[in-house]
Amino acid sequence: MPIRTRLTERLGLRHPILLAPMALVSGGRLAAAVSAAGGLGMIGGGYGDADWLEREFAAAGNQRVGCGFITWSLAKQPHLLDLALAHRPASVMLSFGDPAPFAPKIRQAGIPLICQVQTLDHARAALAAGADMLVAQGGEAGGHGATRGTVALVPAVADLARETAPETLVLAAGGIADGRGLAAALMLGADGALVGTRFYAAEESLAVAEVKQRIVSLGGDETLRTTVFDVARQLDWPQPFTIRAARNRFTEAWHGREPALAENRETAVAHYQDAVAARDVSVAGVFAGEGADMIRDIAPAEALLERMAAQAEALLRGTAGWLA
Amino acid sequence: MPIRTRLTERLGLRHPILLAPMALVSGGRLAAAVSAAGGLGMIGGGYGDADWLEREFAAAGNQRVGCGFITWSLAKQPHLLDLALAHRPASVMLSFGDPAPFAPKIRQAGIPLICQVQTLDHARAALAAGADMLVAQGGEAGGHGATRGTVALVPAVADLARETAPETLVLAAGGIADGRGLAAALMLGADGALVGTRFYAAEESLAVAEVKQRIVSLGGDETLRTTVFDVARQLDWPQPFTIRAARNRFTEAWHGREPALAENRETAVAHYQDAVAARDVSVAGVFAGEGADMIRDIAPAEALLERMAAQAEALLRGTAGWLA
Repeated sequence: MPIRTRLTERLGLRHPILLAPMALVSGGRLAAAVSAAGGLGMIGGGYGDADWLEREFAAAGNQRVGCGFITWSLAKQPHLLDLALAHRPASVMLSFGDPAPFAPKIRQAGIPLICQVQTLDHARAALAAGADMLVAQGGEAGGHGATRGTVALVPAVADLARETAPETLVLAAGGIADGRGLAAALMLGADGALVGTRFYAAEESLAVAEVKQRIVSLGGDETLRTTVFDVARQLDWPQPFTIRAARNRFTEAWHGREPALAENRETAVAHYQDAVAARDVSVAGVFAGEGADMIRDIAPAEALLERMAAQAEALLRGTAGWLA
Repeated sequence: MPIRTRLTERLGLRHPILLAPMALVSGGRLAAAVSAAGGLGMIGGGYGDADWLEREFAAAGNQRVGCGFITWSLAKQPHLLDLALAHRPASVMLSFGDPAPFAPKIRQAGIPLICQVQTLDHARAALAAGADMLVAQGGEAGGHGATRGTVALVPAVADLARETAPETLVLAAGGIADGRGLAAALMLGADGALVGTRFYAAEESLAVAEVKQRIVSLGGDETLRTTVFDVARQLDWPQPFTIRAARNRFTEAWHGREPALAENRETAVAHYQDAVAARDVSVAGVFAGEGADMIRDIAPAEALLERMAAQAEALLRGTAGWLA
């Protein structure tokens, strides 16, 4: 007997779980596996490569999947949105930037618009743009995000949505890696959860084996928010976004020494690229969230999804034990 | 029909809620009000003033309350622990430093030892010291803390405790300001919650009216973690602890300009002290957490506690609505 929320009703899902559209990690195969297992998979449109996007939509086959974009990057290549819409995705998610320029086209296409927000101000902008769903992303999240924590951001965004546009769904993201996090998200006022790092280490993710293994061994204490990997990758991320990653020799060398990194940029970039090519995670970035503590294996997405849903369901079913 | 957990059983409480022992804010009157309402109040031992501590224990009257210390500060005046133990407190809580030097005396006195932890490493040290309860404090918390978020820290600490010393209770702290946060804490594997900022704005707290009003008007987006208020207060806090506070003119002037603050320390300290004396919260520190979004009134502690417990109970009782 699965968990039923406004999210499962609205999108026709068996489980109130969305795959985060992680750039270069959430490919078509992973997205399709999550959708096939009853969640909603989303392809990570990332920094905009039309060929990559076409290939990953093809890899999803006939499975219904969504697509997510990095909004400030999409603004440089707005035609990628047309490409995605041509596939009639189950949803389009916009993160990290003003959704207003893209919202009308998505809504006119009749595609549910999901906006990921990191602050109440972001949430207000997303509501003004007519978002169908807000993902309240806490700073525990792996990869890009900001600093507010999930546990207080989610209820505040839920209150704002209810007071402004009550039909808007709210999802929780950031630090949710098992059924406890999903059940907590529902208690906080969310209609479901968006999950990244846990699926980063799914068999079907596009991450290389060395990165998946590092996530399994990683503890949340070993992660930090930084800008040094974006410098190394020559990505021009705007404030206030930073990337959560595993601490390693590269962060030891440069985090907190950003002016020196800027001065030594060419050498550092070359060093970083070599490490990525060599799959050397002692230097290359592993963009994992604080939920890494709860990630102890690499498994198929279906098993991960079912495990998470079953654990959350058992918690919701077992509340009588707390009621004297 | 109240919520029953290992915490309520162990300490004989009606509600699984502890008052954070906020320095100079959680006095005897507030602690007693929380205990009288069915939670457990704890006096904030703070930076160690024997007269203050005696006065606040006296203000608690015959009500059973606990006491909390800032561990690194207690190390400078260890006799304060004897003073507290002489009052047979319901618990002693140690935060921000190594509990090992003080744990034996507390345990030998038969007083439950609560250790607040901000990382898994802190949790390991607390378990090694024989803590009866761990408070897993996320960075959303007001006042001092570190950076890990509540939603991922709590289940990780709960797993560690279960695998190491399963009789150890785990409480969640940081960003919990209403019943949604309390219900989420239970889902995450906690036995209850420790609540600070919500009670900062209780009628009985020792905070001045201007600070309480500022917390009511404050949003979580307007808070930050900083060291500048500790410089201004001439408190020598160790790494990795920072203080979460409302952004104001003082943080605008100095946060991110810490070397300049160090150079202008004398002037800044004088300016700060004037603002505190004038109750001018545009400069003086308001040490509130991200849960401020959920704080919309000043009320008696009893009303706050009952509201929080009733909301959590309704959520736990209503889970059938999520089960199809």
